[in-house]
Amino acid sequence: MKSFKIALAQFSPFVGDIESNVQKMIEQANQAKKQNVEIIVFPELSTIGYPAEDLLLRPSLAKRTVHAFEQLAAVKDIVMVFGFVNLAEDGHRYNSAAVMKDGQVLGVYNKQNLPNYSVFDEKRYFNEGHQHLVFEYLGHKFGVLICEDVWSLTTVQQLAQLNVESILVLNASPYEVGKPQHRITTLKELAKQLNVHVVYANQVGGQDDLIFDGTSFVINHSGDVAFQAPSFKEDLYIVDYQAEEKAYKVLESAPALDTIAEIYQSLVLATRDYVQRSGFPGVILGLSGGIDSALTLAIAVDAIGADKVQAVMMPYTYTSQISVEDATEQAQRMGVTFGIAEIHPIVNSFMQTLYPFFGNAPADTTEENLQARARGTLLMGLSNKFGNLVLATGNKSELSVGYCTLYGDMVGGFAVLKDVYKTIVFELAKYRNSIAETPVIPERVITRPPSAELRPDQKDQDSLPAYDVLDAILYAYIEEDQSQEDIIAKGFEREVVEKVIRLVDRNEYKRRQGSIGPRISSRAFSRERRYPIVNGWKAGI
Amino acid sequence: MKSFKIALAQFSPFVGDIESNVQKMIEQANQAKKQNVEIIVFPELSTIGYPAEDLLLRPSLAKRTVHAFEQLAAVKDIVMVFGFVNLAEDGHRYNSAAVMKDGQVLGVYNKQNLPNYSVFDEKRYFNEGHQHLVFEYLGHKFGVLICEDVWSLTTVQQLAQLNVESILVLNASPYEVGKPQHRITTLKELAKQLNVHVVYANQVGGQDDLIFDGTSFVINHSGDVAFQAPSFKEDLYIVDYQAEEKAYKVLESAPALDTIAEIYQSLVLATRDYVQRSGFPGVILGLSGGIDSALTLAIAVDAIGADKVQAVMMPYTYTSQISVEDATEQAQRMGVTFGIAEIHPIVNSFMQTLYPFFGNAPADTTEENLQARARGTLLMGLSNKFGNLVLATGNKSELSVGYCTLYGDMVGGFAVLKDVYKTIVFELAKYRNSIAETPVIPERVITRPPSAELRPDQKDQDSLPAYDVLDAILYAYIEEDQSQEDIIAKGFEREVVEKVIRLVDRNEYKRRQGSIGPRISSRAFSRERRYPIVNGWKAGI
Repeated sequence: MKSFKIALAQFSPFVGDIESNVQKMIEQANQAKKQNVEIIVFPELSTIGYPAEDLLLRPSLAKRTVHAFEQLAAVKDIVMVFGFVNLAEDGHRYNSAAVMKDGQVLGVYNKQNLPNYSVFDEKRYFNEGHQHLVFEYLGHKFGVLICEDVWSLTTVQQLAQLNVESILVLNASPYEVGKPQHRITTLKELAKQLNVHVVYANQVGGQDDLIFDGTSFVINHSGDVAFQAPSFKEDLYIVDYQAEEKAYKVLESAPALDTIAEIYQSLVLATRDYVQRSGFPGVILGLSGGIDSALTLAIAVDAIGADKVQAVMMPYTYTSQISVEDATEQAQRMGVTFGIAEIHPIVNSFMQTLYPFFGNAPADTTEENLQARARGTLLMGLSNKFGNLVLATGNKSELSVGYCTLYGDMVGGFAVLKDVYKTIVFELAKYRNSIAETPVIPERVITRPPSAELRPDQKDQDSLPAYDVLDAILYAYIEEDQSQEDIIAKGFEREVVEKVIRLVDRNEYKRRQGSIGPRISSRAFSRERRYPIVNGWKAGI
Repeated sequence: MKSFKIALAQFSPFVGDIESNVQKMIEQANQAKKQNVEIIVFPELSTIGYPAEDLLLRPSLAKRTVHAFEQLAAVKDIVMVFGFVNLAEDGHRYNSAAVMKDGQVLGVYNKQNLPNYSVFDEKRYFNEGHQHLVFEYLGHKFGVLICEDVWSLTTVQQLAQLNVESILVLNASPYEVGKPQHRITTLKELAKQLNVHVVYANQVGGQDDLIFDGTSFVINHSGDVAFQAPSFKEDLYIVDYQAEEKAYKVLESAPALDTIAEIYQSLVLATRDYVQRSGFPGVILGLSGGIDSALTLAIAVDAIGADKVQAVMMPYTYTSQISVEDATEQAQRMGVTFGIAEIHPIVNSFMQTLYPFFGNAPADTTEENLQARARGTLLMGLSNKFGNLVLATGNKSELSVGYCTLYGDMVGGFAVLKDVYKTIVFELAKYRNSIAETPVIPERVITRPPSAELRPDQKDQDSLPAYDVLDAILYAYIEEDQSQEDIIAKGFEREVVEKVIRLVDRNEYKRRQGSIGPRISSRAFSRERRYPIVNGWKAGI
């Protein structure tokens, strides 16, 4: 028995790029060695990144994996525990962990519990493993588990019964509000109950709509946290096992984030990774003077820097002067490229072309949508010409009820606030102002009543219930799967609930064509909430 | 032992609308009784329809299912074998079949093989059954299987060994080219080998991107087809079991369709069901004088009738006179509402607004995209004003390589040709002309070289390889999962293959925001080919 050091590689893979991921793994292993680390633990599927989706089905994966092992074999004098796709000779495919030292594979573990719910589709790709892996090193007995395994009491118990002292857990556990603390709370209980240490390494980084927060940690068998890594940050963290204490040394942990700070940082990370990994030189967005675009701008600047962000104000007849002032003001405060493009001539030319077709049909949302689509097309024109990614600025409340224009304000490659309810948008804006010496978002943007400014004196609340009511109904219906009658029984007005639910159900087609955006809730649209567009389900009963 | 009649309910459910599906099931059972039918077999999950996706997770499903059983219990004097969601007391959810007579449930079968590949996600929703169901009725021994079960030799063998004479198979088997005959060919072999009759009832109808072709059938234990129902048609088909021959009577079957006719009919059905079940009064599309919109128009008219179809020609500087002539001509021949809307003023107003931003940047595809987006916005304006659904007209070849404009020609709620390669578009257009006395698509539309007409004298083949080459490369890469090097090894030019694959990989973001469209291939985009947008997989190796 001796003391040793373990490195938690809180690793941000580039999904699909096995070559570059393996290079980074080798660098991190070498870096760890310099600090006398004996074992380095990488996240789940660290070679290919998570989730690689149908790339896992490409035939050349076998060849690529062999090549990855050849490269990793060159690392000496450190035990690497990493994730890979195990393509067995019988044609089975496993989500696996390898334990490798000096080019020798000391053991392979195949994940036993494959999540196939929520955002997960692992049974599409993998077969279940049926065997535990235990290895002894430096007189210490280690077990290996992968992500979902640790949520199966049976699986963890079976492993603990093999007299394992430390369980190394490789994870790609996606972020949602409160999840970082939830993992730790649950595993503290488990570590204590089963008398094992838990060494938990989680992926970090944005991948399409998923955010991986990292927040890797070590829990001693006493149930105490020995170390908790920061969230949303890629780095190597080193912990010390002290043989005489039979426990990991308690190190200074990253302070826990409050909910709003946690969400804000998650959105910054997701935006940065999407933009950079897609290879865009920068982003462009429409800045309306409203709170959604104001917050999106702040997040974009925090993600990639003001010099890479372009904002365009596109006023029309119904745009108030204070919107122009506030947009200009924020752009100046944040130091981004800013321009104003009037859309009157464009909207007029659409109107004139359409009048002969419209005849005497009364004005309705059609004319409002033209404004939004003129703006969307301008942004796309600027994007096409200079290569910047368009960020969509809509929030989850809007998107839920379809209070947004397809091919208009929904234009964009990444919708930063897609999974953020409007009430949280306000909190995030206030939070962002609170952490700066000078608030970056003009106060008036936060305090004035929200308006799409698509007709005279329009307010969001003319068409929608107050946002606190709307968001509460949406949360009950979407996140909690409650029925219409359940929600009415909670005390909301019948008429309001029926309208909201009808709008949610009817706007699936719109959401389906919207861009992706980072998931922060326990029920984000698209990957996690898969509804048929055409369907006759009636919410009422 | 006696003779009996079985009705195959080739049923088109409205997904999610259990109430209306159950009403239709009751009507069909009563209709069958009038023809002295003893047993009626419905498709898989006939009460809720297939695939109901996350509607299956809604808590009120239990209550709705109980209600469905109460209603079905009112049907007397006929055995109904139908599909439903079995919510077991232990919390397990099964994809099940009930055998019911006079309100009594004689047996329940839980599907044993749950497909979770291709377009299927059944392990997201269901647990696997582990028991066979055999029932004797009229001195005949029946077994029950559900769809995927019949593709597991082990499962079918186990059932056959229980001395079953006829296997009733409830299906929701989606269409793809050649699938109707493939099912029959495979099951003929199996019936003969295991010495059982196979009674196969399949769902029919379009559901979002999936098409169910029906093509229900009965195969005798000799391996001979006793009956094959027409494809793409909802109806009740009755077959006779003759006790003395110990076989089903051979009836006149629907003639097999050739491939192009099969595809054409599948697209008509998909379009009709999408439009009607979404509740649109009609459709609108941009008619360009090119073959894609010409074919889409023909399909739309065949699906819902000329009186419900509006076509708009939107010429610009680069639109040739023959395009205007041909579009006008086809609209007249087909008798649809037709209008012409010049887009010059709109494009000019966009250009003028953008010039100050563009500075001296040279013209590129940005300007071309403005034309496409002006058109898209006009179509959406007309759609918003009058309620017609916009049909997108792009084909699979374009969509694969991104030769299309997001928020431009990709605008629409349903993309009829989304899964149809350009070479097949030509075949379908010729086919449609061949079945009419007067060809509906002007000959010149089919024979002229394809052009997007977005710049002077543009031809598709200036930017893309010839369509037969392009489609062959795409098919190898997408449908057959071949690597770049595999495809080059087949004899295609390296430079061309590299370019095509690069374009396919790079345009995932565009496809993700495109509308849904009917799946006819073995590898349609979106539900079936799930690729990360951001990824670093390099096709080369």
